Amino acid sequence: MAEAPGETVDAQAYPGLILVRSIRMSEITVAIDAMGGDNAPGCVIEGTIAALSESDDINVILCGDSEIIKKGFKEHGFEGSLPDRVSVVHTTEEIGMAEHPTNAIRKKKDSSMVVGLNLVKEGKADAFVSAGNSGAILAGGTLLVGRLKGIERPPLAPIIPTANGVSMVIDCGANMDARPSWLVQFAQMGSVYMKEIIGIDNPRVAIVNVGAEEEKGNALVKETFPLLKETKGINFIGSIEARDIPVGYADVCVCDAFVGNVILKLYEGLASTLISKIKEGLTSTTLSTIGAALAKPALRNTLKDFDATKYGGAPLLGCKGLVVKTHGSARANEIKNTILQCRQFKEYDFTGKLTRGIGLTE
Amino acid sequence: MAEAPGETVDAQAYPGLILVRSIRMSEITVAIDAMGGDNAPGCVIEGTIAALSESDDINVILCGDSEIIKKGFKEHGFEGSLPDRVSVVHTTEEIGMAEHPTNAIRKKKDSSMVVGLNLVKEGKADAFVSAGNSGAILAGGTLLVGRLKGIERPPLAPIIPTANGVSMVIDCGANMDARPSWLVQFAQMGSVYMKEIIGIDNPRVAIVNVGAEEEKGNALVKETFPLLKETKGINFIGSIEARDIPVGYADVCVCDAFVGNVILKLYEGLASTLISKIKEGLTSTTLSTIGAALAKPALRNTLKDFDATKYGGAPLLGCKGLVVKTHGSARANEIKNTILQCRQFKEYDFTGKLTRGIGLTE
Repeated sequence: MAEAPGETVDAQAYPGLILVRSIRMSEITVAIDAMGGDNAPGCVIEGTIAALSESDDINVILCGDSEIIKKGFKEHGFEGSLPDRVSVVHTTEEIGMAEHPTNAIRKKKDSSMVVGLNLVKEGKADAFVSAGNSGAILAGGTLLVGRLKGIERPPLAPIIPTANGVSMVIDCGANMDARPSWLVQFAQMGSVYMKEIIGIDNPRVAIVNVGAEEEKGNALVKETFPLLKETKGINFIGSIEARDIPVGYADVCVCDAFVGNVILKLYEGLASTLISKIKEGLTSTTLSTIGAALAKPALRNTLKDFDATKYGGAPLLGCKGLVVKTHGSARANEIKNTILQCRQFKEYDFTGKLTRGIGLTE
Repeated sequence: MAEAPGETVDAQAYPGLILVRSIRMSEITVAIDAMGGDNAPGCVIEGTIAALSESDDINVILCGDSEIIKKGFKEHGFEGSLPDRVSVVHTTEEIGMAEHPTNAIRKKKDSSMVVGLNLVKEGKADAFVSAGNSGAILAGGTLLVGRLKGIERPPLAPIIPTANGVSMVIDCGANMDARPSWLVQFAQMGSVYMKEIIGIDNPRVAIVNVGAEEEKGNALVKETFPLLKETKGINFIGSIEARDIPVGYADVCVCDAFVGNVILKLYEGLASTLISKIKEGLTSTTLSTIGAALAKPALRNTLKDFDATKYGGAPLLGCKGLVVKTHGSARANEIKNTILQCRQFKEYDFTGKLTRGIGLTE
């Protein structure tokens, strides 16, 4: 793909990446799973249109039922023709949210997900974005796009809000019963990501543990801890207890995918339960309802910092192309942020930096 | 110990156990670690005095430096003599929060913790309460008080607030690399506890997992799931994802201690981070500050439901006597609730019900 003339973009354009510095962009092609997620294709199309209107260096290839996709664009005023920079690859199958990941990837060759992943594999797209079946995205990323040489297991690495900015939880993916060497690579990959993409100097890397002392933990953590201490090129600060994750004591929180999944989902669940409890409290008396009306704008601004959808999707790191998973419940704004996020991976040559940062063979 | 005439107590007296029904009490002796925790001995003494004044069927034995304890009581107006129903066992050692649990229990024979646990072992006290080193309490409970015959590993089982009441997370203790058979016993013990002590009919038991489907999970969960399905006497409802824990979809959430510790600590950390973010938002503008003042009483009531200290300490289940761990940062109110909680274990013959409920040899 031809390089577009670089242009300086300010951080305002990236509500999802608040720590990002001013960056220079080049053209990128993103394949999008138009049929994946609870709100597909409506929110996927809406998010795609929003991303295209915010940035003129993105091309998208929507994978899915072309009739349904065209109908969706029609609802947004695109009568008869698609917007510029949008193409569609017609697919006849869909992978459901509850399907067995590997089986679905292997059998449904003409699904929007498999077709999209293959576009990355074949170099026709730089990145693939989906809000569909998480396990299938992870399996497809590894099986179809493929791991970078030397990467043992690609981790899914979402960015979560903290009191002081954002942190990465790595892995939240499919690597349930992890080995110490995988966790060491997660620490390295997370470190490169937080430095190169989020712009944090010397990111603090910690292992999620049940106490601060080195002798604490389960067998995996006890075995991994000394390896992380010896790993060059990362700023390993030791253990992080779960209570310190929301405080932002570490930039990269390393764990196996089971623990990462618990952290990520409890984060979402508890935040939403607490916020509805608070809303309930704020409207429980006449006085409090008046108070709530006065406080609402300020409160909304504060809570926005804890809105996970601001931060775009979670990348599957260590694959030969970029694969990004967004929430199954993603709405247009999250889809838009996820598509915009893809630009930085290419612009910053993330894969190259990862390869060199970890000392893999290029 | 002589049985006191039973009396009916209403739920108002138990702010910590909101679901508890009216209960009948008998006399109980609680050994208390006067030197354990961040706020010892001040808050321990204050909480003890409060518990004694709320209930006249509790006797306490405070273990610790008798001079310091007497001085503490003096500060609460007990000049020259201790309150009725309080005795002191003088100890010369303390177990620090960062000490190696098993070593500390084995070596510090005259520590407040070891002496208190031995009082339970020798039948001189029915229960032991400490806000000290968690690992040492767990190790001491197993090594000194001892497991009930047939119990593989005693789990630590805190009660957490949810949108619909409370749930138990079992295990949050020292059993890091758990075996499936341990988790099955955790499910059984948690079920008896939630039924007998909290008063929930047919408590819903779920295993903490990364998805709803049976084939999801790490090796431990996959192996345990079918065993739980076959376990008689529990109402096993399948997997619970972490996002559904705060919603209260299950009464007993079964997991290994590493995962349980992550859940418990993230719960505490995220709730406190969010609440301070909200406070920050509520006072960020003049209008919102006025609004906050109007809304404060209603909001305070709502947030109280999410105050973990309301629910007393976390029991270590499956030991020959009752051992209860409270937060290291416990203040007087939590100490008080934890001491009051001990009465129910004896009144309800929890150990007897557990033994029969799980089908252990008595």
